[in-house]
Amino acid sequence: MERFVFGIDIGGTAIKCGLFTEDGRLKEKWEIPTERAAEGERVPQDIADTILAKCREYGIRREQVLGVGLGVPGPVSGNGFVSHCPNLGWREKNVNEIMERLTGFVSVAANDANVAALGEMWMGGGAGVKNMVLVTLGTGVGGGIIAEGKIVAGATGAGGELGHMVMNPQESEPCGCGGFGHLEQYASATGIVRMAKKRMAETKKSSVLRGKETLSAKDIFDAAKEKDPLATELVDELGSVLARALSHVAAVVEPEVFVIGGGVSRAGSVLTETVKHHYNKGIMKALQGKEFRLATLGNDAGIYGCAKLILDRIEK
Amino acid sequence: MERFVFGIDIGGTAIKCGLFTEDGRLKEKWEIPTERAAEGERVPQDIADTILAKCREYGIRREQVLGVGLGVPGPVSGNGFVSHCPNLGWREKNVNEIMERLTGFVSVAANDANVAALGEMWMGGGAGVKNMVLVTLGTGVGGGIIAEGKIVAGATGAGGELGHMVMNPQESEPCGCGGFGHLEQYASATGIVRMAKKRMAETKKSSVLRGKETLSAKDIFDAAKEKDPLATELVDELGSVLARALSHVAAVVEPEVFVIGGGVSRAGSVLTETVKHHYNKGIMKALQGKEFRLATLGNDAGIYGCAKLILDRIEK
Repeated sequence: MERFVFGIDIGGTAIKCGLFTEDGRLKEKWEIPTERAAEGERVPQDIADTILAKCREYGIRREQVLGVGLGVPGPVSGNGFVSHCPNLGWREKNVNEIMERLTGFVSVAANDANVAALGEMWMGGGAGVKNMVLVTLGTGVGGGIIAEGKIVAGATGAGGELGHMVMNPQESEPCGCGGFGHLEQYASATGIVRMAKKRMAETKKSSVLRGKETLSAKDIFDAAKEKDPLATELVDELGSVLARALSHVAAVVEPEVFVIGGGVSRAGSVLTETVKHHYNKGIMKALQGKEFRLATLGNDAGIYGCAKLILDRIEK
Repeated sequence: MERFVFGIDIGGTAIKCGLFTEDGRLKEKWEIPTERAAEGERVPQDIADTILAKCREYGIRREQVLGVGLGVPGPVSGNGFVSHCPNLGWREKNVNEIMERLTGFVSVAANDANVAALGEMWMGGGAGVKNMVLVTLGTGVGGGIIAEGKIVAGATGAGGELGHMVMNPQESEPCGCGGFGHLEQYASATGIVRMAKKRMAETKKSSVLRGKETLSAKDIFDAAKEKDPLATELVDELGSVLARALSHVAAVVEPEVFVIGGGVSRAGSVLTETVKHHYNKGIMKALQGKEFRLATLGNDAGIYGCAKLILDRIEK
């Protein structure tokens, strides 16, 4: 009997859905919109509806479904409890219980950044290792920690919140969260653009970046690849602060591999090589020589990780 | 049938031994010297001898012994393999296998700082929680990470090496390890004395510390309790840098409780309160409100943790 698992990654605007075979093949992926009205109360029913419709579409019988893994954009406790999730409007919900009731399938929820890390470990940039850290550099900076093949969620689900590590206590500009000098202010797409504008205002250094009407992280990395001195300096600084943050992560959980994802990671090897260089320069010997890889699953990391949540549960 | 477990904490100069009942009562503790000659090759046999002698002494039969937990002063892989342990002279040893052969008992080895953390979680400052971080402030700074009740050892056993986190990349004086600006240079007993001497040389600030022929961490904390301005400043700085390091640890594994141990922790609540104050000032909301407690097991944390290694193994 062929068996299946659903991976459901709930975002603030769309819910990414994946139907996987037991051996990890993605049979189909699709999206439905996130209905955030009325504290997101429609979301669980919408997910149940799309799952049950997909079962009918493929003629999948109840006993062929191993379960539903769910990624939630906020902290989730070990038993699936969400106390407050502003991204969806949810309050005081046990997601596992609700989804089991609505679908009749085993349901396991976890934080979306953590499931993305699990997905990358399973089928992506971290494939083959059991101790891995994913750091995602997008509009913000997020992360997920995998130790011995399992998510390290932390006491209330805030483990892996790498974006708000204080990297520069002297910083005078505030982070989006209100703090000062957080990793996200330097190593996100918005962070490197902020740094570029600041540097251009402060110095007279010539740069192709000065001609741009709008400036993106991609512009900066592209210019660095062309050896633009200012852009090179900026990429080096991003690499340096990220490396220092990751060296702290290494001192705590010592992964074998760091996987870098998110939009900024499209910069490719210039990013991983710069981070690696700074990481090995600053860190104690016992923690040197770790690998820095790029994420490979992109926006699908979450649905893969959600599927893996169920497969891990079954294996126990 | 009463059952027992041995907790053996191997140090560079002495081996601390504990005989525990199954429910965690320490029946007797004793020490034997560490024979470091000839790459420490006598150590396993010495341990086996003292364990078997203790069994005879109490009339404990083989089937009453659940196992032997061992703390090793260096990295240990998950299956008990030690590739290199300069503190003992060991190279390429599988400690679990050797001890099982010599004693006939189930043996489980782990890093000494990690077992101390496990011990504090079980019966010490972290009692009652499953997500805990121990940081020990002694001559150096060490640490151990517990997530969901288990040690996070890392890929090669270097997890929890908190002392060498780079807290000040601008530092010009080297750490004992050769790096620069490591936590240990500010938050250890030697670190705060170093800072005190530096500050006294750089400023003219009056302080009772200036009169001392030799200066210890205890002198500085005692003076701070008496409101000596320079000492207060130094304790505040130690608290600030330690809090920043622990805020990074929290972003990775989010413990419920930080337990502070080692000689410096004898300073008591002035230390925990200072660290707590700085921690909550700088950190994102989701990670605020953690507890800061003092370690309570002192030098016995290791033998407790070693015993727990075995009890956890048995429960599986």
